[in-house]
Amino acid sequence: MFIDRLIDEIKRKNNPTVVGLDPRIEYVPAFLKEKAFKDYGRSLKGASEAIFEFNKIIIDSVFDLVPALKLQSACYELYGSHGIDVLKRTIRYGREKGLIIICDGKRSDISSSAEAYSAAFLGRASIDEDVREPVFDADALTVNPFLGYDGIKPFIDDCKNYGKGIFILVKTSNKSSGQLQDLLTHQGKSVYEILAEHVNGWGKSLIGKYGYSSVGAVVGATYPNQAKILRDIMKNAYILVPGYGAQGGTARDVVHAFNCEGMGAIVNASRSIICAYTSDTWKDKFDETRFGEAARAEVARMRDDINRELGASKICR
Amino acid sequence: MFIDRLIDEIKRKNNPTVVGLDPRIEYVPAFLKEKAFKDYGRSLKGASEAIFEFNKIIIDSVFDLVPALKLQSACYELYGSHGIDVLKRTIRYGREKGLIIICDGKRSDISSSAEAYSAAFLGRASIDEDVREPVFDADALTVNPFLGYDGIKPFIDDCKNYGKGIFILVKTSNKSSGQLQDLLTHQGKSVYEILAEHVNGWGKSLIGKYGYSSVGAVVGATYPNQAKILRDIMKNAYILVPGYGAQGGTARDVVHAFNCEGMGAIVNASRSIICAYTSDTWKDKFDETRFGEAARAEVARMRDDINRELGASKICR
Repeated sequence: MFIDRLIDEIKRKNNPTVVGLDPRIEYVPAFLKEKAFKDYGRSLKGASEAIFEFNKIIIDSVFDLVPALKLQSACYELYGSHGIDVLKRTIRYGREKGLIIICDGKRSDISSSAEAYSAAFLGRASIDEDVREPVFDADALTVNPFLGYDGIKPFIDDCKNYGKGIFILVKTSNKSSGQLQDLLTHQGKSVYEILAEHVNGWGKSLIGKYGYSSVGAVVGATYPNQAKILRDIMKNAYILVPGYGAQGGTARDVVHAFNCEGMGAIVNASRSIICAYTSDTWKDKFDETRFGEAARAEVARMRDDINRELGASKICR
Repeated sequence: MFIDRLIDEIKRKNNPTVVGLDPRIEYVPAFLKEKAFKDYGRSLKGASEAIFEFNKIIIDSVFDLVPALKLQSACYELYGSHGIDVLKRTIRYGREKGLIIICDGKRSDISSSAEAYSAAFLGRASIDEDVREPVFDADALTVNPFLGYDGIKPFIDDCKNYGKGIFILVKTSNKSSGQLQDLLTHQGKSVYEILAEHVNGWGKSLIGKYGYSSVGAVVGATYPNQAKILRDIMKNAYILVPGYGAQGGTARDVVHAFNCEGMGAIVNASRSIICAYTSDTWKDKFDETRFGEAARAEVARMRDDINRELGASKICR
């Protein structure tokens, strides 16, 4: 079961953080980029292969410290079929290193199309009546709830059939997330609160040994007050927290998504880790040829930062 | 400008309908499927190539009758990088035949990721500082509004820079769309009404010669009463109407998305056209080797069905 595997790995590595592999070509150090351009051309293919080499070094540098990777699908789609090929190879490479792979696709559609997305990311594609093949085979996918339950159900079915998970957007980390998500309904609840009640209900058939469901939620680190409310409404849901680091969320902000025992959430950071070699904290210590070591140092710092804050706030009221 | 090109084509072909190229391997007639499997294997690649041959015949059969195609991206992602390659080749093939291509990706994300999606579908991908390349190069993309304006703005910027369009989901055609979209807010408006006001406002900087904006909206044919309200709120927005045909929407339902002059909307049908050769209406006339002719016959029938209803309801009050 997805959620049990995730929690077991968080416990084993004593680390509730996730590395966001959201690579941009401008993040890739020149020595890797030039080699890929020489081998494959200054093209969509060349950029994709540069990103794959970058990803492998990041994964090699952090796999023993973190439970999971989050891959932003937009960064791969940007390079067309070559980028999608690298998405698939990165997922496979990460899984071979024992990492849990969350694909951040924020997909949603009416049920027949949601079935196709789900088959692609979590399940199997139909080739012919009796032939089915895995495509991306990620462990989990982020899903957008705008279409309501019948856009979510195909993903939940595949979570059951293939031991996978989903994280449903409830309160996103961006500035204008409130425009729709914070609207106050006539019963006095906000849209994100109503969504949270649905998410908690939808997950009831997928609860594992720790009391959490393979149907999780996304709640941005940039909204700590909402995180408190949402943690309380979604008792079953593991919360994926984006927005730590480059987007401005701190350890003090993210603790609200955890329960009083320091469980119930995983925190993602992307740029602050994969571009650590360019940051004020690490750039004097690691030059661009050592970007993997810089990412590792930042992963360890982030883990300790969050665990320290969780320790300080671990009071079960 | 996207919206002017679309309206010019609708007028020229006297047809406000769109063919939804949402192919499934099970829709592809055996003779095409077996050939592709023989050439490329019973594999993700073989299925993708079968779908490409299917798409080409559909396009060859309808391109002179319809202004546009809508491609459901899930159907192509289902086959990984091979499917994405076929998505790109289908877009190119359709554009070469003079068709306007709407990619139905329902994408959305925080701004940095929305920029990447927008670059992939509408703009250019950065390969290196001075090298940028088009990727899918569709004419328009469907976009999900759950994250608010800063998840929409990157797409609007590319609409301006590259003469493209977007259609923002406002009221989707599926059964559970009301779970979030129909929630009544404390000011007495529903979520879809508030969204419609935003969409109309966001489109103001992209209004063309006919008074419509390249920022359009999606409103399902299955909700005719909401379509009436939304047509009134979104004076600038061209409305893309899914749900005609296989999903149950009729010509009488879709006319509410049009203005009293018979403009302002385009109606999509997918299965009822591309699987016309299996339908009660056409299966006796066309066997599976003539699926293109069946699609053409259904496109003409649908055009006449909608134009007849538009003629009957063309009373400007």
